[in-house]
Amino acid sequence: MSRYLNSFHKNLLPYTPGEQPVDMQYVKLNTNESPFPPSDKVIHAVNAAEISKLNLYSDPECTNLVKRFASLYNVKTENILFGNGSDEILQYCFYSFCGEDKKAVFADITYGFYSVFADLFHIPVEIIPLNDDYTLPTDKFKNANGTVFIANPNAPTGLALTKNEIIEILESNKDDVVVIDEAYVDFGAESVVDLIDTYNNLIVVQTFSKSRSYAGGRLGMCFADKELINDMKMIKYSLNPYNIDRLSMAAGIAAADDDAYYKKNAAVIIQNRQWLTNELTALGFNILPSCANFIFAEHPQYDGKELYLQLKERGVLVRHFDKDRICNFNRITIGTMDQLQILVDTIKAIFKEQDN
Amino acid sequence: MSRYLNSFHKNLLPYTPGEQPVDMQYVKLNTNESPFPPSDKVIHAVNAAEISKLNLYSDPECTNLVKRFASLYNVKTENILFGNGSDEILQYCFYSFCGEDKKAVFADITYGFYSVFADLFHIPVEIIPLNDDYTLPTDKFKNANGTVFIANPNAPTGLALTKNEIIEILESNKDDVVVIDEAYVDFGAESVVDLIDTYNNLIVVQTFSKSRSYAGGRLGMCFADKELINDMKMIKYSLNPYNIDRLSMAAGIAAADDDAYYKKNAAVIIQNRQWLTNELTALGFNILPSCANFIFAEHPQYDGKELYLQLKERGVLVRHFDKDRICNFNRITIGTMDQLQILVDTIKAIFKEQDN
Repeated sequence: MSRYLNSFHKNLLPYTPGEQPVDMQYVKLNTNESPFPPSDKVIHAVNAAEISKLNLYSDPECTNLVKRFASLYNVKTENILFGNGSDEILQYCFYSFCGEDKKAVFADITYGFYSVFADLFHIPVEIIPLNDDYTLPTDKFKNANGTVFIANPNAPTGLALTKNEIIEILESNKDDVVVIDEAYVDFGAESVVDLIDTYNNLIVVQTFSKSRSYAGGRLGMCFADKELINDMKMIKYSLNPYNIDRLSMAAGIAAADDDAYYKKNAAVIIQNRQWLTNELTALGFNILPSCANFIFAEHPQYDGKELYLQLKERGVLVRHFDKDRICNFNRITIGTMDQLQILVDTIKAIFKEQDN
Repeated sequence: MSRYLNSFHKNLLPYTPGEQPVDMQYVKLNTNESPFPPSDKVIHAVNAAEISKLNLYSDPECTNLVKRFASLYNVKTENILFGNGSDEILQYCFYSFCGEDKKAVFADITYGFYSVFADLFHIPVEIIPLNDDYTLPTDKFKNANGTVFIANPNAPTGLALTKNEIIEILESNKDDVVVIDEAYVDFGAESVVDLIDTYNNLIVVQTFSKSRSYAGGRLGMCFADKELINDMKMIKYSLNPYNIDRLSMAAGIAAADDDAYYKKNAAVIIQNRQWLTNELTALGFNILPSCANFIFAEHPQYDGKELYLQLKERGVLVRHFDKDRICNFNRITIGTMDQLQILVDTIKAIFKEQDN
């Protein structure tokens, strides 16, 4: 830290993104990307004609993109806001609806960025431990007296709440905002976007980085009551009004036009997830029942961190968290069948070596 | 505002971007965009192969982009940081180096976002009035005892400081960061990037939105001592690590590879600026001597706001600021000769009508 950094930030611990090593070509199953490219419609929409217009600013209101998704999700245009990835939307949520006098409430094991945002903005937190089986103790999120952040499905566990469980949480927190982070919802959980008309305290956050194959392009969105959207817009216009670039707007619209392609890919991921779950279960792993594009797996006889390191040495990257309660687990992104076959073969080879 | 918005934000006044009306096709001279498209190299670099990889996250370190610009600007890679537009870099500067105990110091008439950031983060400010001739009172920025923000050339005046004047400000503020915002530097002002090795309190901010024809793609950067860069990186990794998308990285590298194209365009803008200055001077306008891709012009006999409205009615957009001291001025972006000819003809027609 330089001597110029404001002392407000002296204890800051930034987010650690999944590693992106460049030393060799890995089978990369560590950052929950889609193994499928964007739709051909996206590839055609981001064309020379669009690129030639990049000298002109993008539309800060994202008018056409918002219209297209309002129609796709059957909501009003006033109920949608786009961000430079869903991380930016989450940043708006923390900065808008939490503060010195309004804590953030989230689980001990969940998306790592929640605690980073709280830390960055000096927001007090209430950390609620997951149950022993890693499910979310929904009762403890009732009458939270703070802004609630729930990833559904949760990361890195992959476990999901039902819509009814979320409704109970919404009902009991009418004086507080409840943020449901649906980054992984398209892989088998139930979305609550249709509840935004009923609950004016609900914000549903989604991303293009997972099921929509657009992690490298940066696009996220949220759905909420008009008043909450306007609050976040005020923050957006105070931070970076032109946050969405022209190409992402064109790409987003084209992605909506080819929704079937992404739904088909999600179905393949769900199928591959089942295959991998069966294979690893047969090898003795305990696997949490996942509704996401990853599984969270531990083995009673093999140390989680050691397995991660051994896999990495052999060119297969998975994500390991050096964190209490979950340090024996690895989070494995569901890739193509080819990638998963390599993973399983590599794990078998590691186990065989260790058994000798 | 919803009842959920944290009271911390209740007096927030967001930035107002230049209007982007969609009611008709305008000759758009209001947001200081380049009238030239990005380089052909950019158009070729952002191709189907790159777009096909958008399912994978972008490199949060921007390794290749940073390397390319380190070489172009003859600085070390550790001295560069990229942002989603220079607005994001400025946001890092305000959030990192100002705070309750460290005010921000800037001119009364300058880039409007400085006061928005200060407002957003509740940073105390010292506002220094420009001289009567709209030049910057450099002495008042010495021993500022706060973080100094200077747009050079300044916006919306177009007036620039010399390198020596900036050195004097740097010398007298060694305990404080001095941010020189060079958004418009390529149109005739002197850059101070080469001073970052001498002054470890200097941050030079640049953008791709003006001379590099990339406003709609979002790319900005800054140059500074390694320690200041690392401070800002810590903020970046706490806000949005994947802030730069894959296509902008490819585009940025291609832009560096065709630097001559952008330099040639800047020379054309300077030439067109001289032409427009001559024409409007002949019509009786007072025009501040501009080093930017816009001019700031007022007429002793015609009201500035009225002229802006009349021009808009006739399909020509310029930027008017409803603000003390400058409300008789209009900021006019330097476009192509065709655009400027339309502007001049339209002004002549307005004057003729009013004189009758």
